[in-house]
Amino acid sequence: SRCGMPEVVLAEGKDTDSLVKIMHSYVLASGRCVASRITSDQVKAVCQKLPDGITAEIREPGGILILSDGTKPIPSGGTVGIMTAGTSDIRVAEEARSIAEEMGARVITSFDVGVAGIHRLIPALEKLREADVYVVCAGREGTLPSVVAGLVDKPVIGVPVSTGYGYMGQGAAALASMLQSCAVITVVNIDAGFTAGAFAARIAALIGEKK
Amino acid sequence: SRCGMPEVVLAEGKDTDSLVKIMHSYVLASGRCVASRITSDQVKAVCQKLPDGITAEIREPGGILILSDGTKPIPSGGTVGIMTAGTSDIRVAEEARSIAEEMGARVITSFDVGVAGIHRLIPALEKLREADVYVVCAGREGTLPSVVAGLVDKPVIGVPVSTGYGYMGQGAAALASMLQSCAVITVVNIDAGFTAGAFAARIAALIGEKK
Amino acid sequence: SRCGMPEVVLAEGKDTDSLVKIMHSYVLASGRCVASRITSDQVKAVCQKLPDGITAEIREPGGILILSDGTKPIPSGGTVGIMTAGTSDIRVAEEARSIAEEMGARVITSFDVGVAGIHRLIPALEKLREADVYVVCAGREGTLPSVVAGLVDKPVIGVPVSTGYGYMGQGAAALASMLQSCAVITVVNIDAGFTAGAFAARIAALIGEKK
Amino acid sequence: SRCGMPEVVLAEGKDTDSLVKIMHSYVLASGRCVASRITSDQVKAVCQKLPDGITAEIREPGGILILSDGTKPIPSGGTVGIMTAGTSDIRVAEEARSIAEEMGARVITSFDVGVAGIHRLIPALEKLREADVYVVCAGREGTLPSVVAGLVDKPVIGVPVSTGYGYMGQGAAALASMLQSCAVITVVNIDAGFTAGAFAARIAALIGEKK
Amino acid sequence: SRCGMPEVVLAEGKDTDSLVKIMHSYVLASGRCVASRITSDQVKAVCQKLPDGITAEIREPGGILILSDGTKPIPSGGTVGIMTAGTSDIRVAEEARSIAEEMGARVITSFDVGVAGIHRLIPALEKLREADVYVVCAGREGTLPSVVAGLVDKPVIGVPVSTGYGYMGQGAAALASMLQSCAVITVVNIDAGFTAGAFAARIAALIGEKK
Amino acid sequence: SRCGMPEVVLAEGKDTDSLVKIMHSYVLASGRCVASRITSDQVKAVCQKLPDGITAEIREPGGILILSDGTKPIPSGGTVGIMTAGTSDIRVAEEARSIAEEMGARVITSFDVGVAGIHRLIPALEKLREADVYVVCAGREGTLPSVVAGLVDKPVIGVPVSTGYGYMGQGAAALASMLQSCAVITVVNIDAGFTAGAFAARIAALIGEKK
Amino acid sequence: SRCGMPEVVLAEGKDTDSLVKIMHSYVLASGRCVASRITSDQVKAVCQKLPDGITAEIREPGGILILSDGTKPIPSGGTVGIMTAGTSDIRVAEEARSIAEEMGARVITSFDVGVAGIHRLIPALEKLREADVYVVCAGREGTLPSVVAGLVDKPVIGVPVSTGYGYMGQGAAALASMLQSCAVITVVNIDAGFTAGAFAARIAALIGEKK
Amino acid sequence: SRCGMPEVVLAEGKDTDSLVKIMHSYVLASGRCVASRITSDQVKAVCQKLPDGITAEIREPGGILILSDGTKPIPSGGTVGIMTAGTSDIRVAEEARSIAEEMGARVITSFDVGVAGIHRLIPALEKLREADVYVVCAGREGTLPSVVAGLVDKPVIGVPVSTGYGYMGQGAAALASMLQSCAVITVVNIDAGFTAGAFAARIAALIGEKK
Ligand SMILES: Nc1ncnc2c1ncn2[C@@H]1O[C@H](COP(=O)(O)O)[C@@H](O)[C@H]1O
Ligand SMILES: Nc1ncnc2c1ncn2[C@@H]1O[C@H](COP(=O)(O)O)[C@@H](O)[C@H]1O
Ligand SMILES: Nc1ncnc2c1ncn2[C@@H]1O[C@H](COP(=O)(O)O)[C@@H](O)[C@H]1O
Ligand SMILES: Nc1ncnc2c1ncn2[C@@H]1O[C@H](COP(=O)(O)O)[C@@H](O)[C@H]1O
Ligand SMILES: [Mg+2]
Ligand SMILES: [Mg+2]
Ligand SMILES: [Mg+2]
Ligand SMILES: [Mg+2]
Ligand SMILES: [Mg+2]
Ligand SMILES: [Mg+2]
Ligand SMILES: [Mg+2]
Ligand SMILES: [Mg+2]
Repeated sequence: SRCGMPEVVLAEGKDTDSLVKIMHSYVLASGRCVASRITSDQVKAVCQKLPDGITAEIREPGGILILSDGTKPIPSGGTVGIMTAGTSDIRVAEEARSIAEEMGARVITSFDVGVAGIHRLIPALEKLREADVYVVCAGREGTLPSVVAGLVDKPVIGVPVSTGYGYMGQGAAALASMLQSCAVITVVNIDAGFTAGAFAARIAALIGEKK
Repeated sequence: SRCGMPEVVLAEGKDTDSLVKIMHSYVLASGRCVASRITSDQVKAVCQKLPDGITAEIREPGGILILSDGTKPIPSGGTVGIMTAGTSDIRVAEEARSIAEEMGARVITSFDVGVAGIHRLIPALEKLREADVYVVCAGREGTLPSVVAGLVDKPVIGVPVSTGYGYMGQGAAALASMLQSCAVITVVNIDAGFTAGAFAARIAALIGEKK
Repeated sequence: SRCGMPEVVLAEGKDTDSLVKIMHSYVLASGRCVASRITSDQVKAVCQKLPDGITAEIREPGGILILSDGTKPIPSGGTVGIMTAGTSDIRVAEEARSIAEEMGARVITSFDVGVAGIHRLIPALEKLREADVYVVCAGREGTLPSVVAGLVDKPVIGVPVSTGYGYMGQGAAALASMLQSCAVITVVNIDAGFTAGAFAARIAALIGEKK
Repeated sequence: SRCGMPEVVLAEGKDTDSLVKIMHSYVLASGRCVASRITSDQVKAVCQKLPDGITAEIREPGGILILSDGTKPIPSGGTVGIMTAGTSDIRVAEEARSIAEEMGARVITSFDVGVAGIHRLIPALEKLREADVYVVCAGREGTLPSVVAGLVDKPVIGVPVSTGYGYMGQGAAALASMLQSCAVITVVNIDAGFTAGAFAARIAALIGEKK
Repeated sequence: SRCGMPEVVLAEGKDTDSLVKIMHSYVLASGRCVASRITSDQVKAVCQKLPDGITAEIREPGGILILSDGTKPIPSGGTVGIMTAGTSDIRVAEEARSIAEEMGARVITSFDVGVAGIHRLIPALEKLREADVYVVCAGREGTLPSVVAGLVDKPVIGVPVSTGYGYMGQGAAALASMLQSCAVITVVNIDAGFTAGAFAARIAALIGEKK
Repeated sequence: SRCGMPEVVLAEGKDTDSLVKIMHSYVLASGRCVASRITSDQVKAVCQKLPDGITAEIREPGGILILSDGTKPIPSGGTVGIMTAGTSDIRVAEEARSIAEEMGARVITSFDVGVAGIHRLIPALEKLREADVYVVCAGREGTLPSVVAGLVDKPVIGVPVSTGYGYMGQGAAALASMLQSCAVITVVNIDAGFTAGAFAARIAALIGEKK
Repeated sequence: SRCGMPEVVLAEGKDTDSLVKIMHSYVLASGRCVASRITSDQVKAVCQKLPDGITAEIREPGGILILSDGTKPIPSGGTVGIMTAGTSDIRVAEEARSIAEEMGARVITSFDVGVAGIHRLIPALEKLREADVYVVCAGREGTLPSVVAGLVDKPVIGVPVSTGYGYMGQGAAALASMLQSCAVITVVNIDAGFTAGAFAARIAALIGEKK
Repeated sequence: SRCGMPEVVLAEGKDTDSLVKIMHSYVLASGRCVASRITSDQVKAVCQKLPDGITAEIREPGGILILSDGTKPIPSGGTVGIMTAGTSDIRVAEEARSIAEEMGARVITSFDVGVAGIHRLIPALEKLREADVYVVCAGREGTLPSVVAGLVDKPVIGVPVSTGYGYMGQGAAALASMLQSCAVITVVNIDAGFTAGAFAARIAALIGEKK
């Protein structure tokens, strides 16, 4: 781990043999190993002959595979609130959740909040009231993080999600509008749930430590 | 006039001599002539020796110059509501207003509504309650038209305004987010107050006609 | 429904299970449910065990699936005219038609008008003479909406369609030229038949109301 | 001259001293020398002490300066027709005209044809009836070359002109729509009147030769 | 045919049923019908039950299918020279050839000339010596048309081809460098062999007519 | 103030009259008012007739003007560390510092750290050891935030700065590389010192509160 | 061979028949023939009936196929050091290695060096100590070449690799940051291992010659 | 100096006071100090009160200012050949020359070679025959480095120069075509004469050392 960051393996684009080797050696060395964006073929390969005493957990959507020897992440005392505008954003939110939990954060979520009306947003925010920091995932025009930042007094991190067709689709407009936002938010790259989750967990831990 | 659209001369980039000639001959032929984005030097040139019986009116911001022989636009019976998110958007809104009024629309406005909170938006919308159609001008992330479209049941036209610095600044993010918007809005080019105002006036007239 | 807009489900990219659940519950709650960009596999899944008393209608191209319990949209009294430049644009036009009809508009169409000559355009426009508002779909250089706007005195909404190869293909040049157009048109995103249809239906209803 | 192409000096961006030296030595060597996009300061410098027997002619707009010792271009027998959509396009058209004339073409022009209606286009085309090849300059959405190509049976070269504001302004949309055009046209870069004029003159000469 | 241009059907993206119908009715009406970018499945469908007396000819690469009742194009007397830099450019060159031949041009070709050395270019040009006009297809950095234009005194049309990986690959750099070229060439869109071939054939016919 | 965020007025692009009015009324209402990117002419106008009891402080570079009636920001207990790669980045860092201080943060800085070697970075980090959160400003290739994030265990916010010429200059490459970074950082728009400073101050306050 | 550069055939996109013909005739003519980016189907076709006395060697990843009649490259005496940031970059590095070896260079490599810490970089550089020139392959933000250039006193060539998702992914950010780098490096296109390897081998040979 | 690279100060964008301070202290510390892209105002400020014993040399174009106490660069024994396509490229070439000379290279140049014909290139190359490495500067379509690389057997570095108007002007097409080039060249950013010169000088020194 570099700088206290647990290794999360980006399975996407890795050849299967290397992936199996990396994950097995990680879990044996450190007790846990998480992969994201893993395909079902890759999962099969990794799980076919798991090292002794290692169990596997799969999370959908997001393609998360967690290997462990029973070791659990050490709770940091901090809480990360994760929200999504739509259902297509959930796979990215799950990526954020996985790394945040690996880093010891308690994660609370509110998915598919919509952007259409304040009536669905208010109860969603209420549900996340205990969050020390927010990760807000949104595609198309990517408005939700800005709206949330106007309503809470904790840091809000925007995650543009690769939805939307046509001009500036696939998360491009969402990234642009988050970067141009009048609200005080910071941003990660399109679909970068991993980075947002890790960044949020780091903040949550710093606040949690103090509680 | 083409298709019942009064001529509005885009002064920007025209050489002064042509502009003077064009405006003077228009106003003599049709009783009124409007120019937008006109510089003070151009205004001086046009107004220096106005044809007999022609008077000039200037509107700031927006650089609108209106020549007339006393003729007034014939009221269409329709009402256009124009809103801006900030003060930098007003010059574009004024362009929309000028053409809409030329086309006989009553124009009601609510400028500098902000995007920060619903508390300033609700009275602004209240003020525009009688509008048959809305023109909403916004820069940076360009959220306002989408928000308005979620709150009214009349057509909403978004006008991205060339404000905002950095990546996708100068109206680019606003255009992108309006085109990607989940709300039902149509869009014109960045700073195209003229087109939005004329389109809105046309709709307002069709509804006004019927009242 | 938000702001009197019937729900149209964008099937594209939704996982089948969620889609079936969403559509079935919508139709039971509101009498009708429309999906666009639905694949044949998704249609199969949705229609396999339709709730009692629900019938399904499919429209090609455009991938429209309409579930209903016999309820019909309430006629708004307005008429939307939809035109396409080519045959590839029809799937987008059908998306516009579906939402407009759901919103109570009468829809009249004239497809594959071409851009090559006025001789095919004039009878096409004649056929749409009763329209209160026009939706004009065009790909490649996207000229048709501007030409139509020069010939009719009703509002014209341009829909760029993702055809054309090479530089600025896939609707990009069409979007650009509609935004730069000298004609008074407003624009929606590439392939956004849904937004154009809904916007047009809203205008048509306002005019129809008055008749 | 390379490949029978007379030298036209692009004055834009050249330092004055080099420009004077280049133009004076060209005109002495070959009897004529043309510069385009020349500023009034540059003109002053070039003309201040003209070599003996050399006279200067200036053409506006376009910033054309022609030095000559009385030598005239040898008529090629071909005719180039140059058309512009607006008045802002004329400076580019003049650049095309200058090089075409240097290459011996007869040039006939029809400027500010508009795009709004066929009624202004038809007489404009009539005026250019004798052209062997057309150069059509247009900004904003750049439709005119495609329209012309649909009405004549001679080759049409499109020249996008750097007008228009907002997204894809400054000739970008015009270039895109000409490249995506369904009509059979070829294109030069934005504002490249020189290239279009030279290309057209070459074609005209080949046809003229034969007459 | 519009403006004396024979119809060439772009098969790409067309659904098979429409394509069959279009091609069969064209060939019956006009004696010949050409399709480009046709897949082998589409060819099978079109040829399965050809109308009586109609024969089919296929050309690879380029996906050209020619139906005819024995009618031949009427020779225009002009000659088009087509050149390619590499072998990947040939499919685009074949598209140019097909339309040029349909329009009555004699077509002479020199493929895979390379860009590496003058020693392969000189004999290639020699082979095309009789051309009235050149179509030069090149991908990657797209230099070849500029080089050819420096060596011949006939018009040269550049066709960027969608080869090359990485930044500005897929013909984008080729298009850019042709538009920025110091040589006198005009350009068509990436892979637009059809437009280049038709434009060249038109020029060749005008010169041929005169011979 | 929205969400506990003090108002910082972006002077850039505002007309002088509005700016004076806004700043004077803010400072009277809330005791302090900060403007950034203010020109010397604007400063003159604002300070010419300051309201009674109001004093002005100017900070260069960054164009910060602070009006106050003696009121000081309430210390939050948190510390923000601000670092820049070069000297050109300082104006953006000063913008971050101003807002952070307004929000009660203690700000410690280390400017012009360079990217060339670890030997200058280590003492710079040492100097910022007490920071609860880092704001790192860098132009050109924008590497510094990623390097810092690899060396500290506090949250790091990257601010791309509009330096660098050529392709992806003016901060574009810096933004891109921060978004693509393997390090766990979040990002704001190019030159958005304000947003980064406010976001950091919010985090610092949450940690400070707990100490 | 042009300019002493051995032919390496880019198999990607070539049709199988041409590829077989090209490779077989090359190897017979010159003793060796290398192809890069070759698929397993293409390998099968090429190797099915190898000319007499020709043997084939395959290298993965990178899709390198080497045919030879036993001839070996003549050692140039120079050494090329090739480094990669991650494992995904190795296929590009292998392409660089193959051409460099064909050109007679000794190649030493250090793959998957990471960017996270100096502790992995120092031994990697130590391993490449004998290199006369470096080729450094990196994706995502592409920092590694700049870092290496700050630590060695030999020329460093950066190769952006098409990894990374989201905005400026697929090597775009890496290319941008290498071009904007404050370090003294030169750059090749994304994934252009071939060009980097050949360029490095040329330099190495010039230095090697002298030793 | 880092890694044996002498400091060259990029004056562009630096405030005058800092620049004077930096240059004076550099020259006193190391005997020489070079600035590039310096304005005449900046030159005046730096030279107004030069430290005792320091002399200044100015080179135009390129805005190079060299301060020295008489110290000369130590000859490396290597030779750098610098070539430009046009006269506008010379300022960038001069930047390359200055840094190369500071690093001890002998620099030989051949400016304004043109791209139009081999007849001007051959003698230009002849003049540079002794170069160990080439820096080739070219704007617009940027062909020259590729052509040179086809004719010499030494390494060639391409420098795109910010000339050319319209689409992909200002060096963008030149950068693109150099990156897409089939020739074996490496590239630096647009106008980055400094980087190219330093890279070339490093190679030249390595070869020179051996001679
Ligand atoms: N979904 C993800 N997105 C971005 N980075 C990731 C993701 N998953 C893992 N990573 C990080 O990417 C870096 C390279 O991953 P690897 O290629 O697995 O060594 C490591 O620092 C991982 O922690
Ligand atoms: N083809 C479409 N294009 C754009 N929006 C659509 C389309 N079909 C449905 N929608 C709208 O997209 C929004 C989100 O859809 P859903 O993800 O189905 O909840 C709803 O407001 C739908 O009415
Ligand atoms: N992987 C590669 N990347 C770039 N160029 C290559 C590659 N492999 C071969 N080449 C060169 O590409 C040019 C065209 O290749 P070909 O199409 O095989 O004639 C030749 O000069 C080859 O040497
Ligand atoms: N014209 C130039 N282009 C690119 N880099 C330069 C130029 N001139 C100086 N540099 C380098 O830019 C870096 C930052 O320069 P400075 O801002 O002066 O510290 C130093 O490494 C200089 O050597
Ligand atoms: Mg959203
Ligand atoms: Mg806004
Ligand atoms: Mg069209
Ligand atoms: Mg036009
Ligand atoms: Mg090429
Ligand atoms: Mg930096
Ligand atoms: Mg990297
Ligand atoms: Mg050049």
